[in-house]
Amino acid sequence: MNRPRTDARRHHDPQVRGFASDNYAGAHPEVMAALALANVGHQAAYGEDAYTENLQAIIRGHFGASAEAFPVFNGTAANVVSLQAVTDRWGAVICAESAHINVDEGGAPERMGGLKLLTVPTPDGKLTPELIDRQAWGWEDEHRAMPQVVSITQSTELGTLYTPDEIRAICEHAHARGMRVHLDGSRISNAAASLNVPMRMFTNAVGVDILSLGGTKNGALLGEAVVVLNQDAVRHMKHLRKLSMQLASKMRFVSVQLEALFAKDLWLRNARHANEMAQRLAEGVRAVHGVEILYPVQANAVFARLPHEVTERLQKRFRFYFWDEAAGDVRWVCAFDTTEDDVDRFVAALKEEMARYTP
Amino acid sequence: MNRPRTDARRHHDPQVRGFASDNYAGAHPEVMAALALANVGHQAAYGEDAYTENLQAIIRGHFGASAEAFPVFNGTAANVVSLQAVTDRWGAVICAESAHINVDEGGAPERMGGLKLLTVPTPDGKLTPELIDRQAWGWEDEHRAMPQVVSITQSTELGTLYTPDEIRAICEHAHARGMRVHLDGSRISNAAASLNVPMRMFTNAVGVDILSLGGTKNGALLGEAVVVLNQDAVRHMKHLRKLSMQLASKMRFVSVQLEALFAKDLWLRNARHANEMAQRLAEGVRAVHGVEILYPVQANAVFARLPHEVTERLQKRFRFYFWDEAAGDVRWVCAFDTTEDDVDRFVAALKEEMARYTP
Amino acid sequence: MNRPRTDARRHHDPQVRGFASDNYAGAHPEVMAALALANVGHQAAYGEDAYTENLQAIIRGHFGASAEAFPVFNGTAANVVSLQAVTDRWGAVICAESAHINVDEGGAPERMGGLKLLTVPTPDGKLTPELIDRQAWGWEDEHRAMPQVVSITQSTELGTLYTPDEIRAICEHAHARGMRVHLDGSRISNAAASLNVPMRMFTNAVGVDILSLGGTKNGALLGEAVVVLNQDAVRHMKHLRKLSMQLASKMRFVSVQLEALFAKDLWLRNARHANEMAQRLAEGVRAVHGVEILYPVQANAVFARLPHEVTERLQKRFRFYFWDEAAGDVRWVCAFDTTEDDVDRFVAALKEEMARYTP
Amino acid sequence: MNRPRTDARRHHDPQVRGFASDNYAGAHPEVMAALALANVGHQAAYGEDAYTENLQAIIRGHFGASAEAFPVFNGTAANVVSLQAVTDRWGAVICAESAHINVDEGGAPERMGGLKLLTVPTPDGKLTPELIDRQAWGWEDEHRAMPQVVSITQSTELGTLYTPDEIRAICEHAHARGMRVHLDGSRISNAAASLNVPMRMFTNAVGVDILSLGGTKNGALLGEAVVVLNQDAVRHMKHLRKLSMQLASKMRFVSVQLEALFAKDLWLRNARHANEMAQRLAEGVRAVHGVEILYPVQANAVFARLPHEVTERLQKRFRFYFWDEAAGDVRWVCAFDTTEDDVDRFVAALKEEMARYTP
Repeated sequence: MNRPRTDARRHHDPQVRGFASDNYAGAHPEVMAALALANVGHQAAYGEDAYTENLQAIIRGHFGASAEAFPVFNGTAANVVSLQAVTDRWGAVICAESAHINVDEGGAPERMGGLKLLTVPTPDGKLTPELIDRQAWGWEDEHRAMPQVVSITQSTELGTLYTPDEIRAICEHAHARGMRVHLDGSRISNAAASLNVPMRMFTNAVGVDILSLGGTKNGALLGEAVVVLNQDAVRHMKHLRKLSMQLASKMRFVSVQLEALFAKDLWLRNARHANEMAQRLAEGVRAVHGVEILYPVQANAVFARLPHEVTERLQKRFRFYFWDEAAGDVRWVCAFDTTEDDVDRFVAALKEEMARYTP
Repeated sequence: MNRPRTDARRHHDPQVRGFASDNYAGAHPEVMAALALANVGHQAAYGEDAYTENLQAIIRGHFGASAEAFPVFNGTAANVVSLQAVTDRWGAVICAESAHINVDEGGAPERMGGLKLLTVPTPDGKLTPELIDRQAWGWEDEHRAMPQVVSITQSTELGTLYTPDEIRAICEHAHARGMRVHLDGSRISNAAASLNVPMRMFTNAVGVDILSLGGTKNGALLGEAVVVLNQDAVRHMKHLRKLSMQLASKMRFVSVQLEALFAKDLWLRNARHANEMAQRLAEGVRAVHGVEILYPVQANAVFARLPHEVTERLQKRFRFYFWDEAAGDVRWVCAFDTTEDDVDRFVAALKEEMARYTP
Repeated sequence: MNRPRTDARRHHDPQVRGFASDNYAGAHPEVMAALALANVGHQAAYGEDAYTENLQAIIRGHFGASAEAFPVFNGTAANVVSLQAVTDRWGAVICAESAHINVDEGGAPERMGGLKLLTVPTPDGKLTPELIDRQAWGWEDEHRAMPQVVSITQSTELGTLYTPDEIRAICEHAHARGMRVHLDGSRISNAAASLNVPMRMFTNAVGVDILSLGGTKNGALLGEAVVVLNQDAVRHMKHLRKLSMQLASKMRFVSVQLEALFAKDLWLRNARHANEMAQRLAEGVRAVHGVEILYPVQANAVFARLPHEVTERLQKRFRFYFWDEAAGDVRWVCAFDTTEDDVDRFVAALKEEMARYTP
Repeated sequence: MNRPRTDARRHHDPQVRGFASDNYAGAHPEVMAALALANVGHQAAYGEDAYTENLQAIIRGHFGASAEAFPVFNGTAANVVSLQAVTDRWGAVICAESAHINVDEGGAPERMGGLKLLTVPTPDGKLTPELIDRQAWGWEDEHRAMPQVVSITQSTELGTLYTPDEIRAICEHAHARGMRVHLDGSRISNAAASLNVPMRMFTNAVGVDILSLGGTKNGALLGEAVVVLNQDAVRHMKHLRKLSMQLASKMRFVSVQLEALFAKDLWLRNARHANEMAQRLAEGVRAVHGVEILYPVQANAVFARLPHEVTERLQKRFRFYFWDEAAGDVRWVCAFDTTEDDVDRFVAALKEEMARYTP
C-alpha cells in the first residue's frame, strides 16, 4: 500500500505504553477506515449531512424511538450541554463529590453553564436515593439553587458500576421530586459490557432523561454525543449546542466515528476487551504481596494503594497517575488497545518494584 | 490496497458538489495521512503529547519565537477563548457588525464569555481606526462595558482583505488606547495566499496580539488553534481553554492535522487553489449579463446579487446560501477541493438560468 | 420638632441644583414619612412582610388582577431580571441601539444575564414593527441567538413617548412571532402623566408581558420593581431575583416606598410636575436664539445642541451632562423637586451664555 | 411633631417580635435621622456625592489608609462582587461547606460570578489552614478550577468567632500559596464587639484582602459595602460593581446610612447590645432542662436542639427558623433592638413548652 504523502511526521515511540488513561490510546483502525469512507466529496455542514442523519437511526436502535443524538467534541461539553438542557437558570445539579463534572472539568459547569453543583460524598462514586436526599430539598426556597437534575456516572469515576435496578431507583426517586436524571456515559460502553446488557437497560428503560454518550475513550479520535432520551425534558438542543461552542462544521467526521463504533458491535468489542484487560490486571495485582486494590473492579479501571517509593519507580517504566497522592492511591486504566502482554509486563514490573521495597 | 473493515457505510453521493461553504469540503488526503501516522501506540492526553509539542515549533516558525498555539475544536471556540483571554470581566469587544462573532456564533461570546460586543457598521466588513473610534471611548465610565479589544477578521466575512498596513494602523490605534487586537483567522490562509505574504506580515509583525488560526476550512477534518502572539497579553491559557470546554483528550489528533497543514506549504497550496477558483468563478460570473458582484473578490468567496427566481432554480442544481435573502444577495465559496470543472459547470448553469429569466 | 441624634452630618450645599438627572434629586418627603411608618418592630425578611404583600394589591390596582410585583434595588437589575425571566439560555433581546440596557448598564445584560442584544438604530429612541423586523428573523437558525423578547423604553432614553397604539402594534407584532415584550419603565410615570392615561393603558392593556417599574427617579430613595403582567410568560421569579443578587432582606423598606408612590397619586403628581418643568424649560430654551432642541419634549427631559464653549461655561453654573459630546448635544432632566425658579434661572443663564458667545 | 403626610399605611403589629433573624429588625432611629439629613437638595448620582466621599474617610479610619469602600445593596452582592474582584475567569473560592455563599445565595456566586466553590466540611463553621489544604492544591492543573481566594465569615454562620490569630494564620497560609482572603463581614460588628478589638485587628492587620462590610443586620434599612483592604488585589472595582447590578443611583442614601453606623460608635453599640442579648438568651436557655445549645455562643446567635413538638408550639408564639429540621436544630438571633423583655418572655415560653413536653 502506498501511504499518501504528508508533511507531518511521527514524533513518538509507539512502543512506550502504559495505563494512565483510556484516552492515551489512539483511534481504532475501523474508526479510521470510517473517516476515510466519509471523506469524499461535499457534505452539508453543521449537522445537515447524511452521516449525522444516519447516526440518528443507529442511536434509536440502541436507545429507542424517541432518542436523538447531538454530536459534540468532548466529554466536558457533553456533560455541560446536557445539564444546561435540563435545568433552568435557577437550577442546580445533584452529583457525587467525586463526579467528573465536580472535580475534573475546570469549573466549566459553573462558569459556562451557570450551574451550581450540590455534591454528596460517597464511598464508591455511586449515588443512592438516600444520598440524593442529602441535597434534594428546598425547591421552594429561593435562597437555595433549585435541585433540578441528578447526575450519575456509569461506569463511575472509581471504576464501579450501578446495576440497572440501582439506576431505576435513582430515576424514580428523582422523578418523584420533579428532577431529571443525567447519565455521564463517558465509559458507558464499559458498563454495558460488564453488566452484559444493552445500554438501554440502564438508561431509557429505567428512566434516564439525557445521556452523555462517550466515543473518545472507546476508540474514536474525538467525539461524544448528547443523547436525549426523554424529549419532554429538553428544548432547542441545537441552539444550546451551538452557543456552547460545540457545533462542528464538518460534523460528518464526528458522526461517522460514532457510526463506526455503534452501528454494530465495535463499541462492545472494544469495551469488553478493555474490561477483560482490567480483570487480568486486577488478578495479577492481587497476587502481588502488599498491594491493596481499593474498589470493586467492575469496568476498565483498577485503583490500588502503593508505597510512594514503588509508585515513583514504577512510573519511570509505565505511565500512570496518582489518584490521591497523599493517600498513595493510584489508578490504572485499560483501553481497547491494551494487550495481554502490556498487562503481564506491568504486573511483573510491579512485582519487581514491590520486592525491592523495604518499608 | 485492502481497505480496513468498518461497520460504517458511505451515505452520500460524492458527485453532488456546490459552493455553499468551504466547510462542505472534506479533509485533504495529506491530513488523513497525518492522522494515520499519529495513530499508533499511546500518547499522553490533554496536550502533553509529542504532536502538540511539535506544533509549537511549527507555529513559532510562522509567527516568531514568542508565539504559542492552543489547539481547540472549532472557530467559535477559538474566538471566544481568544477574546476571554484578552479581556477582564468588565471588558468589551469592538468589532464589525458583520463579524462572525456578532452574527454567527449563537450568542456564544455573550453567553459563554460574558462579553459585550460593541459593533460598528462597515461598508465591506473592514474596520478602520475611524470606525473603531465610534466605539472606542468611555474607558473610565463604568456605565459602559470597557472596550479592551478590537477584533478583526482576515479574510473578512465578505471575502475582502485588509492590507498589512491597514492592520498595522488598527493595531497602533488600538494599542495607543490600551486595547488589544484579535484577528479571527478562520480563513487566514486565504488572506496570506492572496496578499502573497507570510501570515506573520499581517499578524505579529504589525501588532496583532492573539489569533484564531483556522484549520477546518483549509482542509482539516476539524481543528483550529488560538495562537498567542503577545505573551504579555494573556495568562493561564490552558485553564481558559479547559473551562471553555475545548480541551481535547486525544489532542495529538488535532495537532497533527495542523502539522500536516502548516509544517510546510499545504495550507498555502490549499488556500491558493481556493482563491484561484474564486477568481475563475468571479470572471465567469462577470461575463453573465445581469449578475452583480458585490464586493471585491480578494479571497475565496464571491458575493453576488441575483433575481430570486434564478437563485431558487440554481439552488436546485448546486448548493449555496442566500447571504441576505431580502436583498437577493448570495454567497459562493470555493474550497481546496473545488475544481475548474466545478466552476465552469456552475457558471454555465448560472448563464442558463439567467437566460431563462425574464424580469 | 426634635431631630433624633445621629453621628452623620450634612456634607453638601442644598442650594446647588441642576438638570443633570432626575436621580440627582433626593426622596420625596412622603416617601420618607412612609419609611418611618414602616420602621417599627419586626417584620419577616426577604419579602414575607406585610408591606410587600400590600404592594401586590396596589400593583394589581394599576395593572390588573394578574399583575405581580417583585421589588428590586435598581433599574439595571429590574431590566436584567425581567429579560432573563422571558428568555431561555439561547434567547436574545431586540432593542433600540439607544436603549439603556445597551449603552448604560456596563454589560450587565450580557455578563450577568448571558443575553445577546440585537440592536436597531432608531431616529428617536423608538422601535416600530418595521424596525423590529430588521432583527426579528432566524428563529430556527442556531447560528443566531434566538430573538425571544422585544424591549422598549417608555418614556424613551431620548425623552420621547410611544402612544398606546404604537405599543399595541409592537406587542401584536412580537407576539405573532412568538416573542415577549418588556417595557423598561424607569420613567413610566412621566409617560403616563404626559399621555394622561393610566399606566395600564400602554402596558398590560396593549400586550406588554413584563415591566420594569421605576421608583427611584420618581421620588424614592431607591427601589424599583419587576412587574409581571403576563404570568404565562414567566416562572420562578423569586429564584431569579435572588440569584440576580436583588433580594432585599428588609424588603419592607423598598416596598413601602413604592406604596408611598403608587398607593394613590404621588407618582402622578411627581411625574406631572417634572414634565411641566420640562415644558417650561423647553419653552424658555426655544426663546433663546441659536439653541436647537433635538427631540420632541414629551416627558421630563430636554435635549439640545449647544456650542461647546457655551456648554462648558454653563456647566460651571449648573450641573448637566453632554449626551453626545462630539455633536455638542446636551441633556437636561427635570425632577419632582425641580422648581420654576430653577428653570427660570437656568434659562436666564443660558441666555446670558449664548449672548456672550460669538461663533 | 407633625408627621408629614403619606399615602402609605402601617400594615403590621409592632408588638409581634421574635428571634428569626437580625434582619427582621428595622432600621436604627439614628440611621433614619441620617437619611433625613442627607435628603435635601441635589447630589450627584452614582457615587459622585459628598456622602460617599465622606464615607471613604470613615472607612480609612477603621481599616487604614489604603482601604476603600464600594457601597452595594445587599450581602449576597457584597460577597459576589468581592469574590469576582479577586479571581480570574478560571478562579475558584475555598470556603466552609456552611458558608452563606455556598448555601444561602441561590447559586449567585456560580451563576452571576462564574465562580466555582471548593467547599470543606467544618465542625463549627470555621476554616483552618489544615482544612483549607483539603482544597488548596492543583494550581497548575487546568482540570481543576484554580483556588485563588479563601473566603471566611466573621462571625460565622454558626455564631462562632475566629480569633485575630486564627485569621492571621489563614491569611499567611493563603498568601503563601498565592491566594487572597475574603472576609464575609455581614456580622463583622458583632465579631468586633465580642472580641473587643477594632475591626482592623482581624482584617487588614492580619492580612485580609477584601471585606464584605455589613450594614443591614447592624441597623441599616439596607446597605453593605465591599471594602478593599489590599489595593494590589483588585482593579476597576467600579466597573465590577456596575456590571453586577449594584450601582445605586442615589448612592448618598446608602452611604449616609453607613456613615450613621460607622462614623462613631453606633455600629458597636448595636452589636454589643445584640451580643449581650444573645448571652442573656443562652443563659436562660441553659437553665431549661432538656435543651442542648449546639455551638459556642460568641456573637448574636444561639443554636439549640429541641424536640420538634416543642419547636412547633414555640414557633406559634415567636418567629424563628429551623436550622436543620431533620436534626431538630433551631437558630435564634438577637438584633440591635432585641430587649431584655423579649429574651425573658421567650425563655419563659421555652420553659413552658418544654415542661409540657413528654418524650
